[in-house]
Amino acid sequence: MLTPDLALAERLFDELAAKTRKGKGIVRDSYGAGEQLAHEMFRDVATALDLEVRVDAAANSYAALAGRDRTAPAIVIGSHLDSVPQGGNYDGAAGVVAGIALLAGARRSGWRPAFDIVVMGIRAEEAAWFDASYAGSYAAFGRLPAEVLLVPRSDTGRSMAEHMAEFGCDVEAVRRGAAHLDPARLRRYVEVHIEQGPVLVGSGAPVGIVTGIRGCRRYRNARSIGAYAHSGAVPRAHRRDAVAATVSLVHALSEAWIAWEAEGHDLTVTSGELYTDPALHGPSKIAGEVRFVLDFRSISDETMRLACAKAQRLADEIGARHRVRFELGAELVSEPAQLDPAGRERLKRLADEAGIAAVEMASGAGHDAAVFANFGVPANMIFIRNDNGSHNPDEAMSMADFGDAARLLAAFVMSEAA
Amino acid sequence: MLTPDLALAERLFDELAAKTRKGKGIVRDSYGAGEQLAHEMFRDVATALDLEVRVDAAANSYAALAGRDRTAPAIVIGSHLDSVPQGGNYDGAAGVVAGIALLAGARRSGWRPAFDIVVMGIRAEEAAWFDASYAGSYAAFGRLPAEVLLVPRSDTGRSMAEHMAEFGCDVEAVRRGAAHLDPARLRRYVEVHIEQGPVLVGSGAPVGIVTGIRGCRRYRNARSIGAYAHSGAVPRAHRRDAVAATVSLVHALSEAWIAWEAEGHDLTVTSGELYTDPALHGPSKIAGEVRFVLDFRSISDETMRLACAKAQRLADEIGARHRVRFELGAELVSEPAQLDPAGRERLKRLADEAGIAAVEMASGAGHDAAVFANFGVPANMIFIRNDNGSHNPDEAMSMADFGDAARLLAAFVMSEAA
Repeated sequence: MLTPDLALAERLFDELAAKTRKGKGIVRDSYGAGEQLAHEMFRDVATALDLEVRVDAAANSYAALAGRDRTAPAIVIGSHLDSVPQGGNYDGAAGVVAGIALLAGARRSGWRPAFDIVVMGIRAEEAAWFDASYAGSYAAFGRLPAEVLLVPRSDTGRSMAEHMAEFGCDVEAVRRGAAHLDPARLRRYVEVHIEQGPVLVGSGAPVGIVTGIRGCRRYRNARSIGAYAHSGAVPRAHRRDAVAATVSLVHALSEAWIAWEAEGHDLTVTSGELYTDPALHGPSKIAGEVRFVLDFRSISDETMRLACAKAQRLADEIGARHRVRFELGAELVSEPAQLDPAGRERLKRLADEAGIAAVEMASGAGHDAAVFANFGVPANMIFIRNDNGSHNPDEAMSMADFGDAARLLAAFVMSEAA
Repeated sequence: MLTPDLALAERLFDELAAKTRKGKGIVRDSYGAGEQLAHEMFRDVATALDLEVRVDAAANSYAALAGRDRTAPAIVIGSHLDSVPQGGNYDGAAGVVAGIALLAGARRSGWRPAFDIVVMGIRAEEAAWFDASYAGSYAAFGRLPAEVLLVPRSDTGRSMAEHMAEFGCDVEAVRRGAAHLDPARLRRYVEVHIEQGPVLVGSGAPVGIVTGIRGCRRYRNARSIGAYAHSGAVPRAHRRDAVAATVSLVHALSEAWIAWEAEGHDLTVTSGELYTDPALHGPSKIAGEVRFVLDFRSISDETMRLACAKAQRLADEIGARHRVRFELGAELVSEPAQLDPAGRERLKRLADEAGIAAVEMASGAGHDAAVFANFGVPANMIFIRNDNGSHNPDEAMSMADFGDAARLLAAFVMSEAA
């Protein structure tokens, strides 16, 4: 019997919030001060638990409980320690804290697993900062595309390489593809994460067992370019109204989503940033430019490609009609991923045995688990019920539900590593 | 024969641009430093021309050429000296410079008119700063609603009263309705202004004779309030997507505009500011709030009321469908105005006689002339051809076209005041 240390978990959540809250929300900026604080906390508590602490070239943090056979492939329990700007305290951190609580429980009981169990605090999962997802996971496998190192951070404008260097990363090693993790040396990856949608709240179950992870195709830097003019003095036929064109495009994509859904496609369509230029817009002006994001997510890459093609086609048509030029810009892609079916079956059985209500569900959001799965590591995820969604300051996960997830994680690890 | 001093006019335009350009565009902020510089230039040149310089309680500037009968009602030649943020050099200023060029010509020839001719530099015409149009004109007549003095400036957040006090205004006199101008003491108001649309450029005529001025009904501070959430994890039925709702509303109003136009309504429909919150939005978030402007303009108040009622109805319907609350907020109203038919006839005849091609047209933008007309002063306007519209840094008025307008203004004044 392996009992996770939930008191420690609660203390870690409180400390994380106290250290990384800015105003209403949490700011653990990727390769920035907030994320760094979380990694320092992680390394301190791992050291105090007498775990083996490692840091890779990309400054991902690892805490290992040595197994009886140190040459056997290990289990990695991981999640990310960064947050979106003004995010919540649990998105990402819950998975790392669950892993630490598990190893603390193991230390307390003196249990030594059959092979190494490693908790991993992952860097830069959120694309909000660098317009690139899973940078930390990719780098851990030595597979971060070199051009990602040049991506500017959305707030500072400085490159990922520059930000990394500030926190002791070996940027050259990352660039040449040095790997800290080898898929052949990993038995399994497990990630506990809060659900970022309303499914578990609706179903009444504290935990979810994840079947697969939606991918994402996103135009991060889309623009429409028209011409600024006086709102009262320019007839419709002469306008080049960037707002009129952009609302028409986004509205048409919303309508298309309804049609695709009716045809049975799994998809989300979102424009979460859309804005005229505060330096040039005005209440009595026609807007000459709008910047916006188009974000498509699906468990099927084909469906996402369909949506992107439709967006391009509509942008051409609507742009021509409004005499406005759309530039959708580069497409950011994360592939969808299937999670390990045998692991899912086992999780389901263990939840039943422990009397924890669990529902099977797809993940609408992307997760580091997708990287592990797509590199051939059997990967699984446990979702925790969470109200008010995520990527906002109002995430609401109860410690009781977290406890259920941590216990299920412990049972899952024990069933393999006893 | 009264010949306007066009060399002086050109010098004044250059000086104005040199003193009030900030980056690409012109910034003559209402009751701010940029507008004040323009008024100081106006008073300096009027003093140098030995005109009678006056300033009223609201800091409007006046320069009078004394007439033979100083007790007879005067002609006022006016326009505003403020600009929108990042505007052009001619919007407003052209009318004041035309008046100064005319009085400079009168001084040079020694002509003394039958009655006083007064050039007026008007304050705070643009609603971009204080969310209130024509503050200077209203105050000159003692008719500025006291609550307008409390309106905060969009950039500083400080009230109009506070800003006025900085430039020597007698705010108490403005508040109690002290009048500098009396409609009964005014024979006529004439305003020269650049056209802010493409009509004259399209027609090939350097000047326009304005028939009437569109009014405006505007929701300056409209909002839609939904809920921030993760873009991939929340199914459509659970979303409260403020962007999806707002683009649907603005798109529906664009479509309604096409239908109204087909029915013969005079109208413009514009949303020139529309933005998610940069502190809270994100590429992987559903947006929980959008702020936007809805601006309706027409020569018919009935048509504008129709549009506002439709906007309210659509906001309710679309808001309910998206589980988003729309708050359109206060309606800013400026009444449409008819310009003096006798004056229009005379302007037409005089343009013909001078060989200046002129077309009759409605003004799509609001002007101080509307205030004078609605207070019962016979008012007329001369438009100057101008490429690239206005309220932007790319206004393009030629000095040749300005010269035609100034000569037509001189002939108009002479025909009455000789």
